[in-house]
Amino acid sequence: MSPARIEEHHSRGWIVPVGGAEEKEQDPVILRRFVEISGGAGARIAVIPTASRLADTGVRYEKIFRQLGAHSARALPFETRADAEREDWLGILEQATGVFFTGGNQLQLSTILGGTSVARSIRKLNARGVTVGGTSAGAAILSEHMIAFGQGGATPKAGLASLAPGFGLTNRVVIDQHFRQRDRLGRLLSVLAFNPFAVGIGLDEDTAAFLGPDDVMHVDGAGAITLVDVANLEHSSMAFAKPGQPICLTGIKLHILTKGARYNFVTREAVPPLPPPDDDD
Amino acid sequence: MSPARIEEHHSRGWIVPVGGAEEKEQDPVILRRFVEISGGAGARIAVIPTASRLADTGVRYEKIFRQLGAHSARALPFETRADAEREDWLGILEQATGVFFTGGNQLQLSTILGGTSVARSIRKLNARGVTVGGTSAGAAILSEHMIAFGQGGATPKAGLASLAPGFGLTNRVVIDQHFRQRDRLGRLLSVLAFNPFAVGIGLDEDTAAFLGPDDVMHVDGAGAITLVDVANLEHSSMAFAKPGQPICLTGIKLHILTKGARYNFVTREAVPPLPPPDDDD
Repeated sequence: MSPARIEEHHSRGWIVPVGGAEEKEQDPVILRRFVEISGGAGARIAVIPTASRLADTGVRYEKIFRQLGAHSARALPFETRADAEREDWLGILEQATGVFFTGGNQLQLSTILGGTSVARSIRKLNARGVTVGGTSAGAAILSEHMIAFGQGGATPKAGLASLAPGFGLTNRVVIDQHFRQRDRLGRLLSVLAFNPFAVGIGLDEDTAAFLGPDDVMHVDGAGAITLVDVANLEHSSMAFAKPGQPICLTGIKLHILTKGARYNFVTREAVPPLPPPDDDD
Repeated sequence: MSPARIEEHHSRGWIVPVGGAEEKEQDPVILRRFVEISGGAGARIAVIPTASRLADTGVRYEKIFRQLGAHSARALPFETRADAEREDWLGILEQATGVFFTGGNQLQLSTILGGTSVARSIRKLNARGVTVGGTSAGAAILSEHMIAFGQGGATPKAGLASLAPGFGLTNRVVIDQHFRQRDRLGRLLSVLAFNPFAVGIGLDEDTAAFLGPDDVMHVDGAGAITLVDVANLEHSSMAFAKPGQPICLTGIKLHILTKGARYNFVTREAVPPLPPPDDDD
């Protein structure tokens, strides 16, 4: 699906993909910032643990978000497609100022929630200003085209990764997570090689992209974001590559962005973080 | 990509996926109807033969469309991503009242034209009323999520088919072509099982779906359209299926639609063709 239409006098909410394994105890910078842009002390956070097979995932995030000062945090453990039409849970979702998808298996999110009232509601909430984010599988699901599964390795190859439809809060990006930890440049390039219209964002663990309503992305967390811009790609051999063959791609532009860096999706410009203060004197 | 926004006082143009191998000589009902809804005697048709590796594909369709009474028909043989920025050809495209993609390899369309001025222009043309259609690979490319490749067989299996981003004129459907001829129900079900938000349309050869500006589809041609509606899907096991394993899907609704039948994408209702005239008296 694609983004819902933004109503008059509204601006789109933040979209926050997190690369997985974000710091939760010592100094949870990413989750704290998520609470801030969801309304801080007034934040009502809906946690969707559907991707996870662990029973306590939802409760764990409820606790963290409350400790970080949110007004409320409530897990909505949708386990079946019938659950995704439960009016009581949809009512709680409708009141949220922030929605957070936990990690796990992104195909569990798409198979259980795709095409249901939950998926529709979240697109509409984001279009009228509500923050929506997620970690790992919960990050992958946010875009129109998501990587369903694939193998590691730096070289793009035909058949290395498979796409599936995500929830479509944005169609500007394809997201990959655990990026450096699982050596995923090859699979991100492979899916961009199909149709070079999107920007690839490869998120390291404990690293987040805060995609603002103004289409500027702010980087936060301990690792880096590998941003792959194929706007000026000159050639892709994907149409004729056989399974397992490497793909020829020319004209890729790459940015490695760390905490404090920004990227503007309209102008396609990257801005590095401010330099550290001068210690000379 | 997703559909361009429709401007005020405009309605979207027709979208016409054809299942491949459409009749071109004796009684070309599909191509004739394509000319009619592109303006008839005033039609200016742009033919895009980029999917094909045969040198004469574009010229062949130019001739057919002129014989069928179009005012003009012009092939625009984009072969590279640089071609897709040629101002002379983009100028001709901008004046078209109908755009037709030939068959071949849909990944050649997406890798050469994806993210270029041609893809953007065609989305905008369709949003302001211009008819856009294509046959075989040229049908697959029309939707937001397209089947890039896959195997035949009636049973849906994990890994049976791969998705890639198409040109996104519509996000209501996933299209498959040569449907009965290549036994493709399994692969269409496999991709719908990822995220059951779209309607699957499986087009037999010499069969077309005329998707109207009012979101009603009209069937024409010699074969049938297998329409797969997963709006009320109860369960999909895709999240846990291993490569090659069959997928469990419950609650699929199927319609087999022939010439004269209609399907309304808003109400999700199928209407059969009128019965033949009564011969009793």
